[in-house]
Amino acid sequence: MKDLARRLPTTMVLIVFAYAVIRFLPALPFLGLLYLIIAGAAVELWRLTGPQNRGLPLVLLNGLVLGASFVVTAVPLELAFFFVLFSTGLYLLFMIRDRDLLFGFVRDFGIHLLAAGYLFFPLFFLFRLKQLGPNHLFFLILVIAVGDSGAYFVGSAIGRHKIYPVASPRKSLEGLIAAVITAGLSGWLSVLLFPIPVPVRMAVVTGAVIGLVSQLSDPVESLFKRAAGQKDSGTLLPGHGGLLDRLDSYIFCAPLLYFMVTYWWK
Amino acid sequence: MKDLARRLPTTMVLIVFAYAVIRFLPALPFLGLLYLIIAGAAVELWRLTGPQNRGLPLVLLNGLVLGASFVVTAVPLELAFFFVLFSTGLYLLFMIRDRDLLFGFVRDFGIHLLAAGYLFFPLFFLFRLKQLGPNHLFFLILVIAVGDSGAYFVGSAIGRHKIYPVASPRKSLEGLIAAVITAGLSGWLSVLLFPIPVPVRMAVVTGAVIGLVSQLSDPVESLFKRAAGQKDSGTLLPGHGGLLDRLDSYIFCAPLLYFMVTYWWK
Repeated sequence: MKDLARRLPTTMVLIVFAYAVIRFLPALPFLGLLYLIIAGAAVELWRLTGPQNRGLPLVLLNGLVLGASFVVTAVPLELAFFFVLFSTGLYLLFMIRDRDLLFGFVRDFGIHLLAAGYLFFPLFFLFRLKQLGPNHLFFLILVIAVGDSGAYFVGSAIGRHKIYPVASPRKSLEGLIAAVITAGLSGWLSVLLFPIPVPVRMAVVTGAVIGLVSQLSDPVESLFKRAAGQKDSGTLLPGHGGLLDRLDSYIFCAPLLYFMVTYWWK
Repeated sequence: MKDLARRLPTTMVLIVFAYAVIRFLPALPFLGLLYLIIAGAAVELWRLTGPQNRGLPLVLLNGLVLGASFVVTAVPLELAFFFVLFSTGLYLLFMIRDRDLLFGFVRDFGIHLLAAGYLFFPLFFLFRLKQLGPNHLFFLILVIAVGDSGAYFVGSAIGRHKIYPVASPRKSLEGLIAAVITAGLSGWLSVLLFPIPVPVRMAVVTGAVIGLVSQLSDPVESLFKRAAGQKDSGTLLPGHGGLLDRLDSYIFCAPLLYFMVTYWWK
């Protein structure tokens, strides 16, 4: 309860801020803000993983190029990915002038690809969803929030069967099932509150799938924290941990909802 | 010279085999063969980097999905990349059931992304080049081979200024300049031998750029070997090292030539 009291003011501010930004901000400023938020999460990932070779500015540049591929037709995704690969390879080639730095080479190359491929690439799909219409983003946020709450309350009350003891010891199969059911129902609620011309059956199934995947996305991010021996990814938001902690469910769910909408709803 | 004598028979076989495959094999079998070759290189990368958590079959599955994105229009690259991300995240989430396995999590996640993003993704551009016409692939192979020879002979004779002492101690600035010049000239030779309707000036500049980047692509692959304390990536080809050693220049140069052709030549 004490935790809830600490979180509540931040939660209210976040909700109002997110609503205003999603509803009223034009496309390009929205993408710019999204870039800054993901860049903040990338800095947290960088600190958590602690690469041996410097190169954080390159991570942020790679993110910028990936972001460009979402708006500039002359920069397709394949060109942006090639840029990430080439710039990182070259950077490490010229940085590693000492045998001692060789030890971290594979891990550091991997961290650069993770920042680009695990953060910037999937989270820019939040921009794609906003382009489909703000209500698609409200759908995603509502379904994930309700599914998380369902998992938390049911899991706390009757959770017995642990699913991933190392990544998230408090998550249980009972909570996962509750997330699927409550997220499915909130899919129906969402299209009532934020109309999207989609049959209710599709909205419910999509909500349930997002609710399931959200419960898988969050513990993968936890592995980064636990591998680093940390509880939160950062301390930016009181009671909420860091930016990465707030974004973790969207890493898998933002692209997934986009693909479900474009392949199935249409 | 002893090394040259060991290499020569394999080199002749490789040239005839590559020529026949590029000239006569239809698109889909070509892509299938290319997949098998990259998969072999991925196995070598896997052995060199020695991830803590198993999952080689997943690497090969991810490569298959990425390959599909190059021929199946219903599977765009963004969907294939999302599959790689999601499957790897989920796999590691369920594999890491023990605190001891947490240590390798970041590095292992990175190795999966490297296999997909540093091997399969760029090397499938060899297929794209073949689709543009076999002569584009002959251009690439000839330019890289001539540039490498130029760098080797000039570097051995007068090379003084080391560029990347850790990655490739025998490579020099003099060799790099020789690679740019000889590769540029071979660009002109290539369009005479294997006609492509492109102005000679463009072919020469493209050859020079490919010659330069090829000399950067190769030492990045060397870093993987040196980080593992190995000289060759494998022992498949007598005198030639492994598959990865044969493919290393193409990792950066295949996408680069494709982009130069589609953005500049057309």
